[in-house]
Amino acid sequence: MAMMPVTDSMFLLAEAREHPMHVGGLQLFELPDGAGPEFVGEFHRSLLDLVDVRPLFRRRPRGPVGVVGQFAWTNDDHLDLEYHVRLSGLPRPGRVRELLELTSRLHGSLLDRHRPLWEFTVIEGLQGNRFATYSKIHHALLDGVSALRLLQSSLSEDPAERGVRPPWSPRVRTNVFDKPGRTEDFDPFRAVSSLVKDVFGLGPAAARMVNEAFREQAATLAFQAPKSMFNVPITGARRFAAQGWPLERLRAVGRAASATMNDVMLAMCAGALRQYMIDLGMLPEKPLVAAVPMSLRARSAPAGDGSLGGNALGLILCDLATDEVDPAARLARIHESMVRGKEVYHGMSRLQITALSAIPLVPLAIGTVPGLTTVTPPAFNVLISNVPGPRRPLYWNGARMQGVYPLSIPYEGQALNITVTSYADSLEFGLTGCRRTVPHLQRLLGLLEESLTDLEKTTA
Amino acid sequence: MAMMPVTDSMFLLAEAREHPMHVGGLQLFELPDGAGPEFVGEFHRSLLDLVDVRPLFRRRPRGPVGVVGQFAWTNDDHLDLEYHVRLSGLPRPGRVRELLELTSRLHGSLLDRHRPLWEFTVIEGLQGNRFATYSKIHHALLDGVSALRLLQSSLSEDPAERGVRPPWSPRVRTNVFDKPGRTEDFDPFRAVSSLVKDVFGLGPAAARMVNEAFREQAATLAFQAPKSMFNVPITGARRFAAQGWPLERLRAVGRAASATMNDVMLAMCAGALRQYMIDLGMLPEKPLVAAVPMSLRARSAPAGDGSLGGNALGLILCDLATDEVDPAARLARIHESMVRGKEVYHGMSRLQITALSAIPLVPLAIGTVPGLTTVTPPAFNVLISNVPGPRRPLYWNGARMQGVYPLSIPYEGQALNITVTSYADSLEFGLTGCRRTVPHLQRLLGLLEESLTDLEKTTA
Repeated sequence: MAMMPVTDSMFLLAEAREHPMHVGGLQLFELPDGAGPEFVGEFHRSLLDLVDVRPLFRRRPRGPVGVVGQFAWTNDDHLDLEYHVRLSGLPRPGRVRELLELTSRLHGSLLDRHRPLWEFTVIEGLQGNRFATYSKIHHALLDGVSALRLLQSSLSEDPAERGVRPPWSPRVRTNVFDKPGRTEDFDPFRAVSSLVKDVFGLGPAAARMVNEAFREQAATLAFQAPKSMFNVPITGARRFAAQGWPLERLRAVGRAASATMNDVMLAMCAGALRQYMIDLGMLPEKPLVAAVPMSLRARSAPAGDGSLGGNALGLILCDLATDEVDPAARLARIHESMVRGKEVYHGMSRLQITALSAIPLVPLAIGTVPGLTTVTPPAFNVLISNVPGPRRPLYWNGARMQGVYPLSIPYEGQALNITVTSYADSLEFGLTGCRRTVPHLQRLLGLLEESLTDLEKTTA
Repeated sequence: MAMMPVTDSMFLLAEAREHPMHVGGLQLFELPDGAGPEFVGEFHRSLLDLVDVRPLFRRRPRGPVGVVGQFAWTNDDHLDLEYHVRLSGLPRPGRVRELLELTSRLHGSLLDRHRPLWEFTVIEGLQGNRFATYSKIHHALLDGVSALRLLQSSLSEDPAERGVRPPWSPRVRTNVFDKPGRTEDFDPFRAVSSLVKDVFGLGPAAARMVNEAFREQAATLAFQAPKSMFNVPITGARRFAAQGWPLERLRAVGRAASATMNDVMLAMCAGALRQYMIDLGMLPEKPLVAAVPMSLRARSAPAGDGSLGGNALGLILCDLATDEVDPAARLARIHESMVRGKEVYHGMSRLQITALSAIPLVPLAIGTVPGLTTVTPPAFNVLISNVPGPRRPLYWNGARMQGVYPLSIPYEGQALNITVTSYADSLEFGLTGCRRTVPHLQRLLGLLEESLTDLEKTTA
């Protein structure tokens, strides 16, 4: 029995019916040439034959032990693989709509704590000669970015390769855990705990640096996030929507407007959120603020502050300019806001970047503790993450992956999460929302397309 | 906002991930003649068109309020019918096996407390020109017997009748709630709370009667339930198995052995459980004891004891004779045990019957309170209920119901529940177990058939 790090325990303690603390991934595959009607069922059975399961996927929580409520990990000696690896069918006509409906339901239920905290569902009955997989893993086991990377890295770039192993197999093709942690891996909870550990674990000198940085940030962020329909208590049920857009379309807009592709992605979201809120009569007068994790270049460390140079992950609070009618002008403001946001961090050490980034996230971490609610206005309205993904098409035993969409965690006071990831030549959007608070989430997909079209017209 | 009775609140307070407190029903229907491939989808859509929902199905819990942790009911003004009424598909080949797998999963997840506590799933993709429905309702709303009765009473005996309403419609055909409560409705939790209310709410005279009755019962039940694999802490995941047997087969055995049909049903269970436990090397030396709720004739009330005559529900602890090799001898012992069990209650008032029946159930009610576990040996090993059902075939808009199977609640220390119900000319078994504690639950179906065959051979 191994004690669990306090930060991992936190995900289990903070979890309630309203706050399932797992992340997910939806993958779409094309059936390989010549695949018969039994292909998906056989694929599922072949996964059950792989009885070897790596230790991470055998761990289950035990506890809380001790007064601080820390959990321990214990090994599940009677792993019931059929419980974890499931086969589901879609009702007719098996469109993406039925797939998203099922995925939303699967993502809304709690993982069973008496077992290792993951599930993998193979989904058949999808139109267009396709099938899907939905994977679900508890945040205490793996954060969202690592989970997505593990899913992707278990696949092959070679359509002819067979014997491709699932992520829980000890003989998976590549092992993301062998690689050192990447600083682009952003996770709100870890950022907060990192703040607690790094900042409060250091002396007054470090704390002073944070104060200076904070004052600087406060000066830059003259605007403040308005209260919005997304920043309220949430329920346990989820709605999930997903779609991919050609990277080239975003790149073209970026070239025409002298903005980055990430700026264009944010402008797509801004336009869609604006129209969505107008339709519901809920658009705040003041512009929405997005929290956007970005990889930044940190200054190399002076002796004694305990931080390192190289890359660091910073959280930028971006003005989404949802009060602006013109899409091109909106994109320009977003671009400017992102440039200014990066400037705030310029010349800071990694410690300073981490500490400053964690500050807006503190209410979010507190919000999930039962009984503790914050009365402060939100530091931001919506979290939008962009996770770099593989550049080339991937295959699972000859089945080409058409798309991969991340499912994330809405938090108390943050009812909508947008995570995008690049895959081959497209940008894949995954929108995870509280079912009650974010009605008709699917509409945002149509509005994202409209928003991109508007950007294409106004910047051309 | 209406305060919830303390007994209803109890089901919400006692509920945890390990103890979902909802009951379910699985119904199998034949597609009507000429039904096309869109029939089930259209059936589901037609249910969503019925936006009128009766108050019971609009209530959601709020609280706990006050120091005693009592919940209140509040009305859900924004009922999201699409959330409650779902359409699911089975994976190929769509056998009963795939259906039970899906039903087990649906029965294992918690209901969302932010919404009215029920779900209804229409299931398509079932072999043999059939479809199914699975309904799930929280025990705080409706007990298992009432839920089953509501499901059944919403259907029609007339295959030509159209416009048959679902159970949540205010215009459902018949209303079980309009009828006075029936004493056959057995429910462990209500029995315990009834004990608390009736016995401790009365004077010493009544308490003395309970003591006498208890001594008598203790003398009769010389045997005590052994510890068994079913009487351990349970987990949240469920396994469900279901099958029907022709009533005539059980009747024939009963006639040959001078036993009741209920005795034969118990003997079927006894034989199946015996073989199941032998196969796992887990058969206790001492015979298993079943708790069997039975409708009994109560003595009419003498003045002053506050009870009424007529029918009363008694709990009989039945020797399942699982130490007996010969099936006919086993049936004889079961029959004798049931006769003696009924004799214990002979001449008692309804109050005495209720009080005596509740005593073995107390550990079960205590077991679900977190942190409180009992170290006493189990009063019984398995709960077996027989709920009388409709005698004639029922139809939903022309679709004939082939079978209806109850899904019940395993409790802490009671990992397996067997509930049977009669429908037309068959006896329908529903076995609900903790997935971890009762492995390969489906095997019990084959063993029930074997057990019945053995009874037919040895009593012929």
